[in-house]
Amino acid sequence: VVIDVFRASTTVVRALVNGCRMLIPVLTPEEARARAREFGPGEALLAGERGGRPIPGFDLGNSPREFTRERARNRVVIFTTTNGTRALAAATPAAATAVGALVNARAVAAWIVAQGRDLTLVCSGEVGALSLEDTVCAGLILDAVAEAGCVLEMTDAARVCRVLAAHYRRRLDALLVDSFWARELDRLGYGSDLAACIELNVHAEVPVLDDGAIKPSGSVP
Amino acid sequence: VVIDVFRASTTVVRALVNGCRMLIPVLTPEEARARAREFGPGEALLAGERGGRPIPGFDLGNSPREFTRERARNRVVIFTTTNGTRALAAATPAAATAVGALVNARAVAAWIVAQGRDLTLVCSGEVGALSLEDTVCAGLILDAVAEAGCVLEMTDAARVCRVLAAHYRRRLDALLVDSFWARELDRLGYGSDLAACIELNVHAEVPVLDDGAIKPSGSVP
Repeated sequence: VVIDVFRASTTVVRALVNGCRMLIPVLTPEEARARAREFGPGEALLAGERGGRPIPGFDLGNSPREFTRERARNRVVIFTTTNGTRALAAATPAAATAVGALVNARAVAAWIVAQGRDLTLVCSGEVGALSLEDTVCAGLILDAVAEAGCVLEMTDAARVCRVLAAHYRRRLDALLVDSFWARELDRLGYGSDLAACIELNVHAEVPVLDDGAIKPSGSVP
Repeated sequence: VVIDVFRASTTVVRALVNGCRMLIPVLTPEEARARAREFGPGEALLAGERGGRPIPGFDLGNSPREFTRERARNRVVIFTTTNGTRALAAATPAAATAVGALVNARAVAAWIVAQGRDLTLVCSGEVGALSLEDTVCAGLILDAVAEAGCVLEMTDAARVCRVLAAHYRRRLDALLVDSFWARELDRLGYGSDLAACIELNVHAEVPVLDDGAIKPSGSVP
């Protein structure tokens, strides 16, 4: 399960909820432009960010708010972000990969339980450094897996995530102040995206990786 | 500040408390044997571990209990451990480096405040993975720095450490159960070392790195 709460994971969930057919995660803007040429006119959108900022010539940035039903429905989104798509690339050897966020934490936990496999949570973080919000999200997903009756065998890092989840569960808005990346996004003018990213369990959608694309779990066999 | 609570940091503090002149951290057992030849007969001791186990032909392992006053006093200890000495090597570019453990957390905080510099806490962890006890120790040191009146500008990782410290502060013995490495050391027969490693603030000694050797901070200009 790949987590990038601010904002890639949340944006991916929102896009699928609003009818996007699939998101194709790629590592570079150049690769995104090349992949878009495989699709008919108006079929694919280019989306993503670098350092939190929009990419010149792209249709969309990385704000969940941009992926409205009107923009996303029936579209293919070619998607590249600083940390999130790199974390997805790291997860490709897994037998099954899903995208986790606060907005779909409980749904992801149910998907995990249904998989019945060993679980690795990949917290995207910020250019290699730990990020508070991804750590908290991982802990909340683990809590939900435990609440579903699974007996967890946890690494020390998993324990750390659960202690963080217990601390922030009832004050997720404190993440907007405590998280470095939240403060940075606010400084860049994306503060209004953040409230949508800290809503807990508002979506049942579980985006899963299938043949290099992120699709609604219901559409994947 | 380099932290390896189970057991290297605690052992280093204990050795200096018991009169050891200095510990020379080296990366390999071969390097340890080579360095020992620089000293007169009986002057230097070889100490350390690999995967928690003693190294064949070495005088001491990595148990704090082994570094008694009788063994340590006036001796030079050539020291190599799986994770701790690697973390020390990573810290060598710092302007000043100290060894932090639970046993000397408050003393280390006072040393940090006296330095008046930016602070990096290096949690040794276990072969690249996060370790619970080092995370908690880093948080307790940060708490003590904050209690000394310093205003902290914290990374997300530092915040994580402080949340962990708040959770474990009054139940440090839970680390003996929750920490992977504590369970592993117990399995290897070193369970009796662990109680000595989770005593909080029992030593005022702050080991510092000086010219490639770890010495009592009082002995370094």
